[in-house]
Amino acid sequence: MNGNSVGIVKPQDFTFGITEDDLLPLDCGKKLGPVNIRFETYGELNAERSNAILILHALSGDAHVAGYHSEDDGKAGWWDDMVGPGKPFDTLKYFVVCSNVIGGCSGSTGPSSINPATGQRYSLSFPVITIGDMVRAQHRLMKHLGIERWLSLAGGSMGGMQALQWAVDYPEAVGSVMAIATTARISPQGIAFDWVGREAIKNDPAWDGGNYRDAIPEKGLSTARMLAHITYLSDESMLNKFGRKLQSSDHYSYDFDYDFSVESYLQYQGRRFVERFDANSYLYITRAIDYFDLSDRGNGDLAAAFRNVSCPFLVVSFTSDWLFPPYQSQQLVEALAENHVKVSSCVIESSYGHDAFLLEYATLGKMVADFAVNVYKKVTHG
Amino acid sequence: MNGNSVGIVKPQDFTFGITEDDLLPLDCGKKLGPVNIRFETYGELNAERSNAILILHALSGDAHVAGYHSEDDGKAGWWDDMVGPGKPFDTLKYFVVCSNVIGGCSGSTGPSSINPATGQRYSLSFPVITIGDMVRAQHRLMKHLGIERWLSLAGGSMGGMQALQWAVDYPEAVGSVMAIATTARISPQGIAFDWVGREAIKNDPAWDGGNYRDAIPEKGLSTARMLAHITYLSDESMLNKFGRKLQSSDHYSYDFDYDFSVESYLQYQGRRFVERFDANSYLYITRAIDYFDLSDRGNGDLAAAFRNVSCPFLVVSFTSDWLFPPYQSQQLVEALAENHVKVSSCVIESSYGHDAFLLEYATLGKMVADFAVNVYKKVTHG
Repeated sequence: MNGNSVGIVKPQDFTFGITEDDLLPLDCGKKLGPVNIRFETYGELNAERSNAILILHALSGDAHVAGYHSEDDGKAGWWDDMVGPGKPFDTLKYFVVCSNVIGGCSGSTGPSSINPATGQRYSLSFPVITIGDMVRAQHRLMKHLGIERWLSLAGGSMGGMQALQWAVDYPEAVGSVMAIATTARISPQGIAFDWVGREAIKNDPAWDGGNYRDAIPEKGLSTARMLAHITYLSDESMLNKFGRKLQSSDHYSYDFDYDFSVESYLQYQGRRFVERFDANSYLYITRAIDYFDLSDRGNGDLAAAFRNVSCPFLVVSFTSDWLFPPYQSQQLVEALAENHVKVSSCVIESSYGHDAFLLEYATLGKMVADFAVNVYKKVTHG
Repeated sequence: MNGNSVGIVKPQDFTFGITEDDLLPLDCGKKLGPVNIRFETYGELNAERSNAILILHALSGDAHVAGYHSEDDGKAGWWDDMVGPGKPFDTLKYFVVCSNVIGGCSGSTGPSSINPATGQRYSLSFPVITIGDMVRAQHRLMKHLGIERWLSLAGGSMGGMQALQWAVDYPEAVGSVMAIATTARISPQGIAFDWVGREAIKNDPAWDGGNYRDAIPEKGLSTARMLAHITYLSDESMLNKFGRKLQSSDHYSYDFDYDFSVESYLQYQGRRFVERFDANSYLYITRAIDYFDLSDRGNGDLAAAFRNVSCPFLVVSFTSDWLFPPYQSQQLVEALAENHVKVSSCVIESSYGHDAFLLEYATLGKMVADFAVNVYKKVTHG
């Protein structure tokens, strides 16, 4: 545990939608309840309730953004370098909140949750949710926390999608947005990769139409993860990290086990993922990502989607990110500019691909810190 | 059948390695025999035997490069726009040969062939073969055809790898090389995609350790093909072709069947592939592609690999090809130039990704035709 860690944090739960009139309406037309939201908070909410920042996580993330869950917890939260005392999301200054998305498998209600109506897991009877639904659930959490307006919303990848959706759906509740390595709509190439990943899961006999219990579809989920993992890296970062290095000898095995370091690395990533992630949640969350298209709102163009948005934006992309490429961030910047929104934007030079938003702390951290300080100044002194 | 088709062609077979002293030595140390080579020829070998061009096919290609197999055959060979009377590979001038690679499943000996020693299919007892092995088998075919030296060798993708390998292994037999959308070694990103594709096949219970008979691992093979297919296209071509169009309605289904046109397109491609390609061959051929590294020869650098090469080269790549990107062709050009090899090279502006070598006939055809005419002139009048 390093000196400027937030230390030990305790996950919290907020449950709503227990009564019929409190259910969460979903984009698919169904209603969901009860809904549990697993969340964590760091720092203190000030008396004016003006210093709250909501961090939104990506596909495989969770509410545990920083710190540790126990004294002997060896692994810090997924954005620990960004959140803590004196860090870009400075917990001495801000009240930082992060919640697990609905549809997920890290505490919030999702397909692996028990449906109280049947006493069984939802599995595929869980409704297909959208980014809009995730945000609608987070809005309930905001009210529960007594917050009327976020100082800022920040997220990378799918987290950025949620931040954009917040700005469009609840403009009055959003003080500013930091949209990092994200897009207003994923490309058909991204949809295609997600489709193949879901096919790998659905083709695993252990998936059993989504009804697996003890034997989980680990081969299918591992394959999906390995595929996705390639899209998070870049040609250049893979050349730098692996090249054509062999794993354990100086000659080919002439069989079909792994020979190359990159092959054994992927296998390891796939295996690890299976230990912590639910296969059905993988289906639901990737579907939500594919469905996300802000320009579907209004009359189909992106600028129209932001017509009620006026808060300042920070839009950051990374040169080697080919999953959420810089040109998509540029489209976002242009759509915001058409609405006279104040946008700071930057394309950070990085070889790390999409994963750069989890790795380029030095550059990204400075941008985030400056942006947060500026919006905070306006709230406190403006 | 169009007017300048080569017309009806008859596949031919050449079998060697029937006796112990005629077996094909392989890079893995084993020997293979008997070996059948399925091939087709177009045009006539001239009296000087100086007009023969060998075309090498890519991963899923075969010997049927042009023309039709019968009067009611609705589908021409895979490079029919390039090979025929008056076409870039002009069959009025050249004797064009194409053979199915060993390890394949379209007539040449591969894992789905019967091992005469057991009376059973080889399956995974088939030795792991390399690009060098494929070329060594083609060299036997050349001798069988009474050809001492090819006027030219031409291939795209894995076909280009074979052409490069020919130039290095049999410099005396190679008059010129056309290396299209190819590389001297595939990147770790490419190795990674191949690994995931093979995992999808191996994870299919129908694969049965490679011993499938009637029930083939169609789900695994289809998944592998869908994944590979994405890498043959480009972000731009997918945006142009599919965008975010839905397949059959104007709203999301909110289930996990296909919604997007790109999803149903991939499913279709996967299903079609399963009808014509063997799953074990897919393992063997992708492994050969991953193992291919010309720079492993000599002292590990690419220029050294070409030290005995002196014939002219045409090296063509395509701007949007991210599987065999232009920078890899450039490395090839530089390594050849270091050996004072005469190289014509071009990066063709195209949005079609790796598949451009099968689609950009107008530009590519002109280059190929000019290059072939020039090398032919030297042979006939020089």
